[in-house]
Formats: sequence, C-alpha cells, structure tokens
Amino acid sequence: MNILIRGATVLTMEQPQPLLHNGEIIVEGQYITHVGPAGSVSPERTFDRVMDARGMLAMPGFVNCHTHAAMTLFRGYADDLPLMQWLQEKIWPVEERLEPEDVYWGTMLCCLEMIRSGTTTFADMYFHMDEAARAVEKAGLRASLSRGMIGLSPGAGEALDYSRRFIRDWHGRAGGRITTMLGPHAPYTCPPDFLNRVMEVAADLKVGIHIHIAETRAEIEEIRQKYGKTPVVLMDEVGLFEFPVLAAHCVHLNEDDIRILVEKKVGIAHNPESNMKLASGIAPVTRLLAAGALVGLGTDGAASNNNLDMMEEMRFAALLQKVATMDPTALAAFDALSMATANGARVLGLHDVGLLKPGYKADIILINLDQPHFYPRHDLVAHLVYAARSSDVETVIVDGRVVMEKRRVLTMDEEEVYHEVQKRSQRLVGTGL
Amino acid sequence: MNILIRGATVLTMEQPQPLLHNGEIIVEGQYITHVGPAGSVSPERTFDRVMDARGMLAMPGFVNCHTHAAMTLFRGYADDLPLMQWLQEKIWPVEERLEPEDVYWGTMLCCLEMIRSGTTTFADMYFHMDEAARAVEKAGLRASLSRGMIGLSPGAGEALDYSRRFIRDWHGRAGGRITTMLGPHAPYTCPPDFLNRVMEVAADLKVGIHIHIAETRAEIEEIRQKYGKTPVVLMDEVGLFEFPVLAAHCVHLNEDDIRILVEKKVGIAHNPESNMKLASGIAPVTRLLAAGALVGLGTDGAASNNNLDMMEEMRFAALLQKVATMDPTALAAFDALSMATANGARVLGLHDVGLLKPGYKADIILINLDQPHFYPRHDLVAHLVYAARSSDVETVIVDGRVVMEKRRVLTMDEEEVYHEVQKRSQRLVGTGL
Ligand SMILES: [Zn+2]
Ligand SMILES: [Zn+2]
Repeated sequence: MNILIRGATVLTMEQPQPLLHNGEIIVEGQYITHVGPAGSVSPERTFDRVMDARGMLAMPGFVNCHTHAAMTLFRGYADDLPLMQWLQEKIWPVEERLEPEDVYWGTMLCCLEMIRSGTTTFADMYFHMDEAARAVEKAGLRASLSRGMIGLSPGAGEALDYSRRFIRDWHGRAGGRITTMLGPHAPYTCPPDFLNRVMEVAADLKVGIHIHIAETRAEIEEIRQKYGKTPVVLMDEVGLFEFPVLAAHCVHLNEDDIRILVEKKVGIAHNPESNMKLASGIAPVTRLLAAGALVGLGTDGAASNNNLDMMEEMRFAALLQKVATMDPTALAAFDALSMATANGARVLGLHDVGLLKPGYKADIILINLDQPHFYPRHDLVAHLVYAARSSDVETVIVDGRVVMEKRRVLTMDEEEVYHEVQKRSQRLVGTGL
Repeated sequence: MNILIRGATVLTMEQPQPLLHNGEIIVEGQYITHVGPAGSVSPERTFDRVMDARGMLAMPGFVNCHTHAAMTLFRGYADDLPLMQWLQEKIWPVEERLEPEDVYWGTMLCCLEMIRSGTTTFADMYFHMDEAARAVEKAGLRASLSRGMIGLSPGAGEALDYSRRFIRDWHGRAGGRITTMLGPHAPYTCPPDFLNRVMEVAADLKVGIHIHIAETRAEIEEIRQKYGKTPVVLMDEVGLFEFPVLAAHCVHLNEDDIRILVEKKVGIAHNPESNMKLASGIAPVTRLLAAGALVGLGTDGAASNNNLDMMEEMRFAALLQKVATMDPTALAAFDALSMATANGARVLGLHDVGLLKPGYKADIILINLDQPHFYPRHDLVAHLVYAARSSDVETVIVDGRVVMEKRRVLTMDEEEVYHEVQKRSQRLVGTGL
C-alpha cells in the first residue's frame, strides 16, 4: 500500500531544520520513501491513498521505552501508598492470580491507549509474553518484548527457558514489528550467577537485555551492602554492558556510574512520572545528556503512572529537570521531543525508527493543530512539549498501516477491550470505583 | 432555565462520601437545588432540559486560582530561557505594545481553552482589565479579576485609580459571575507605602487582594536585604493579611511564614508547572496543608506553563509533592482534587462554588468515562488525578448555563478567536512556527 500525505507541517526531528511547512510524505509498504516540500511529488504519480493533512502536524510516533503493558489492569487499584506496601500487599498478590488471557487483554488495553495517544513503539517487560505478543500483533504496534525474570525466585530457570523459546518464536515476527529482549528484572532480584546464564542466552540468540537499574535508594543501599559497589558498577563488572542494554530508571547515579553508562553506550529509559509517583527520586537526566548518554523516555506500567501518555511524559521530563537543577534552560523542548522519538528508538536498538526520513519505518502520527492550546503559532516544538495533549493525535500509522484514523482505532473493538478488562480486573481485585 | 442531569456518576467533592453512582442533579437558574440518587427526583416533575449523562462523571468545574489570561498571546513565544532574560528581553517589551483589544482576544483564547478543559472559574491579574472582563462576560465563565499594579512604576497611581474605577464598574457584574480584587503585583515591586494606599482602597471597596508572594529565591534575597525579613513577614507587618488575600506561589517559606499564612487565613495559589518551568522552586504544599493552610491550584499565565489545563496541574501538584518529600503518600488524589475545586473556590473567597451541593452555584462539568485511560474502574478519584486528560470533558455548565456541549463551545466562535489571536500575536512579536 502506498500513501501520500500532503499539506501537513512536517516535524522530521532531523536537525538542523526539523520543521518543514506544507510538506509531502510518501509511504511505500512499511517504509517512508520521500519527505519533501509541497510540489516535490510529481502530480502524475498515483497512490493507493492520498491523505489531506492540512491543519495537521506530521511527526514520528512516540517511542515508549519502558512499560509493563498488562499492568494497565491495575490502574488506580492502589495509589498513594508506600512502595513496599504497594508491591507486597497489592501488586504481587494480584499478579499471582493473573492468567495468560488476562495479560492478553491488559496488553490490548495498553495498546489501545497508546495508539490513541500517538505511541507507535514500546518496550515491554512482563510475563505470559506470548499473549502480550499476540496483542501487539493484533493491535498493529511495534514493540520490543521481554519476559521479566526474577533470578532469586524458584521459577528463574523456567523463566529463562520461556525467554529462550519466546525469543525464538517471536523475534522479527509480525512483519518485523516485534523484536525481543531478555528481561532480568533488576540487580537486586537477579544475582550475578543468574545474570551469567542470561548473558549466555543473549550471546547465543543475539538479543539485547532489558533491566531495571538504580531505581530506588533502597536498591543502592542493598547492592552496596551485598557487593560494596553501585548497581551500575556491579552490572558492568558482571559483563552485562558488553551486550546492548536497555536500563530502566537510572535514578540514583554517581559520576562514575554516568561515565560507565556513557562508555558502554547503555540505553537509558527515563520514567519521570513513575519515579515521582512512587517517590523514587529524580534521575540526573541533564547530567546524563551532558555526558553524552543515550536517554529515551518511558511511562513505566500504568499501575505507577497512571497512564501511558508520552506527551505528558515529555512535559514531566522537561519541567522536572528544570526545577531539579534550578535552571529554566535545562532539557529544552527539542531535546525532550528527541527523547520521546528518535533517541527512544535508538535506546531500543531500532535504527530505522523515530525520524521522518526516507529509509525509515513509516511510523507517523498526525496531530490536529486546530486547538486553542496550539495558538498563537509561535513555536510548534515548544507547543508539543509544553502545551499539547495526546488527544490531539488524530491519525496513527505504524509500519505503513493506518491503525487510527480521525481518532477511530481500526485494529480492535474498543468496547470489547473495555468489557474484557473490566470483567477480568473485577475477578482479580474486586471492583472499587 | 431548569436542567435535570441524570445517569451520571456524581463526584460531589463532599466528604465522607464524595461519589454517588447513578445520581440526579437539578439545576434551577444559577443554582444546584438537588443532588440525589437515581429515582430521587419525582418522574412527574418537568424540566426545560433533561441531560442523559450515562457513562459520564459529573463534578464541580475546576477553579484556576492564578493566571494572567491575556498572556496566552505569548504562549511558546519564549521558552527555555533564564527568568530575567525571559522577562526583560521577551515578555516586558511585547507587553508594552499590547493594546486593549489584544487583551480582549488573548483573554478570549484563554477562556476558550479553559472551557474546553473543564475550568469554570479563574482568578486573573493583568491590565486593560475592562477588556478582560468583557471577554469573561462573553465567554460565560466565572472570574475574579484584578488590575495588576507595579507600585514602583511611574504609572502606579494611575493603576490604582483604574483599579478603583474597575472594581466599581465590574464587581458583581455578569449576574455575579465577575468579582474583583486589587492586584498589587508583589512585595518587591510594591513597597509598603504603595501597599498602604492599596489597603485603603480595599477597606473602602470591601474587596480582597491578589498578589504574588515568595515566588523566587531572588525575591527572598531582595526583600531580606531591603527589609531584613521574609516577604510573608513583611506583608503581615504591613497589615496586608488583615484583608482577604490570594497569595500566588508561596514557594520559599520558612516555618514562621507558614504559621502566619495559616493564622491569617491567607488563600494560597500553588502553581507547580510554572514554578517548575521557570525553575522557581518547589512549594512546601505538604507542610502547608499539614499546618492547616488553605491551598488552591493555578496554572499561572500560559507564557510560563504553557497551557491552562487544570487536570494536568493537579497531576503535577500531586507527583511533585511525592518526589519532593520522597513520600508516595504525600498529596493524595482526593486532596489534589479538592485543591483544584472546592478549596480553590475558598481561596477566591467564593463560598458557594466548588461542590455539587444544593445552594451551590451550578458550575458543573461532565467527563466522558468511555476512554481507555479510565479502565478498569478501580478508583475514579485516582483516575481523575493520575490518568485523565482535560479533553475528556464533554460538557461544561457555568452559573446554570451550558457553555460547552459535546465539546462544542456555545459562547464564542472558535475560528474567530484563532484568527484574531494569530493576527495580533504576529503584530506583537512576529511569527515563529
Ligand atoms: Zn518498570
Ligand atoms: Zn503570576
């Protein structure tokens, strides 16, 4: 299927000139094959579809670098609680009752919300991942999926076997939309001997590793007491960073940790809303970027956010850095937008995602600029980061396929998703309201 | 006009039972006259209008306690800059070029955005306030308006004369929707002798005072050097707090300041996004509330936010307090929601606004719950604070009058507003994009 998108203001996300007024984009199959000014496409050429995008801004879809998709089932189930009480009394007990189909529908709800808010790619870590992958395939999104593994649990070996089989079954599937990683949960739940087994599989299957690192002060303290070093140094010494690593959080870092993360080209998923809501702390994003680190943005699971809204996440990231450093110039709008798109894709190891550029995957969103908060039109990049809302996203294209048009999601039945998740969440935790 | 709203989940905001499933609300004229369960209204009774609100949540409209409405004209004009450069090189020069009609259209854009995001009442401080008042009258909102005054400027006397005349002309107008205050800008721009003159007028006309207090560290330092005390102590000693005061910001406070603000029942407008974006600091909201202070929420002007979205502001307020105190239980969802509604109304001195309760003004919003981010339905109060977006607001009633229905604003021509603000902002600052 070939699509011509014309009339849009095109935000390519390529410097030095990221904005193209009244641009034309050609999508052929899964790829973008042309981005140019009005008139750059011959009027003779025919297309399966011509989209009139006047009044719209076209930009790369958002890349959500860290989530636990099926946890949308627990959105609003347990808020405003201390972290360990939240996990031990609320989240873990209901997770034990989760069945594979629950994960399918929880992931469907997550995908539905992501499509409706302009996210086209996400990195997920959870369990019952075959069902998560089925949901991604059905929803039409792009995702990097990993089966979360607790190395300390009796099921660790089984989880690793599952991972190996899951990666073989799913890596590159859904026309390449699905990629996979190994998902050891964190340094404090996965001791070095287990990580060694994980790395063997990573070397064997040639996939990256998705892990939580340095999320809380408690983790820093626990690793210091056990190993006498920081989680980053421990992971480095174990050899983890010889593989492509997606490290979620990285909130509590010293200068040495930052140097290692930069040197080893570790991809970092910054999750400001989750870190704020769980009172984990404020990641030193400004220092990381100044040091040359690769940082993307993530929402974390909906149970600790409580939504999957990347526009909101950009805003939180930018404003939080400004107040944390007491510097209003910190994390400027374009940098926040890069984290949410092109840099996020690099964090996931996707090198043809995140820009509107020939040769890149056709993951494109159209944003309706006909909204009061987009006026006056002083600076559209600033408007996207500081004023937009995700409901402004009108149309979503993933891998060359239209998955939402004029806010109607085409790949699933929304009412069916609502019905299933409501029924399942009531079985799992009872209903509140 | 009498309206029956039925079928909605009603969030009255009254403790201990703020939620009523399937409720009925009667609006008669400007007031709410009944809130009860399904079947509580006699089927014999007739109404001018019956609204079927099944699938909706009805709640009080948001109260935005601090803004500079016409500054929506400068949204995105100058971001990511140091504060003094932002003010001196960008904002002040264009403000000098502002004409009265610019303020009218800037305020119209602000009102349009507020209506579309569920705000029904706001407190505004700016100049050319006759035009701001005309816009509020036309838009159908409720507002507390004050003419901002720089006591140190040569025009201070004129501004005070304008204020006096403005208050006489507008206080209680638009069916009582418009109230007024005096607006001395801040302790560092209004020395005690000018504040004395302001207080004379306040005593004479029996209105409150809207002022910025303790916004930045620079202000604290300047006041300390000049007077040897904090801005709060200075204002208290000047006698300002003997009047009803709406104090915006209150970011940098010591324990003594907090004690004074509580004792003198000063209404505080907390503006988390503005404070973060301008890197002013983090207000001690948790400590203020623990001490018994009255705290509402505001967006500040769109030039430093950059929107007027109170749902977003609630979320920022709650999450910022959690991370600032490293306590995930800080500023729980219901408390954030109260700041954005009932407590905000009290900050503005409006004692019949902010609850859905008989005898209260009929300022009601209907929120469409048929959105992925409202599923599963574990806790609607948490969903509103942590997951909702302002575009979920479908219908807005102010003072008993429907001003937005099914997301169509009925009190103004949106295209005309866009056209006027775009034209005027281009004249004022040139166009960017
Ligand atoms: Zn996580
Ligand atoms: Zn202000």
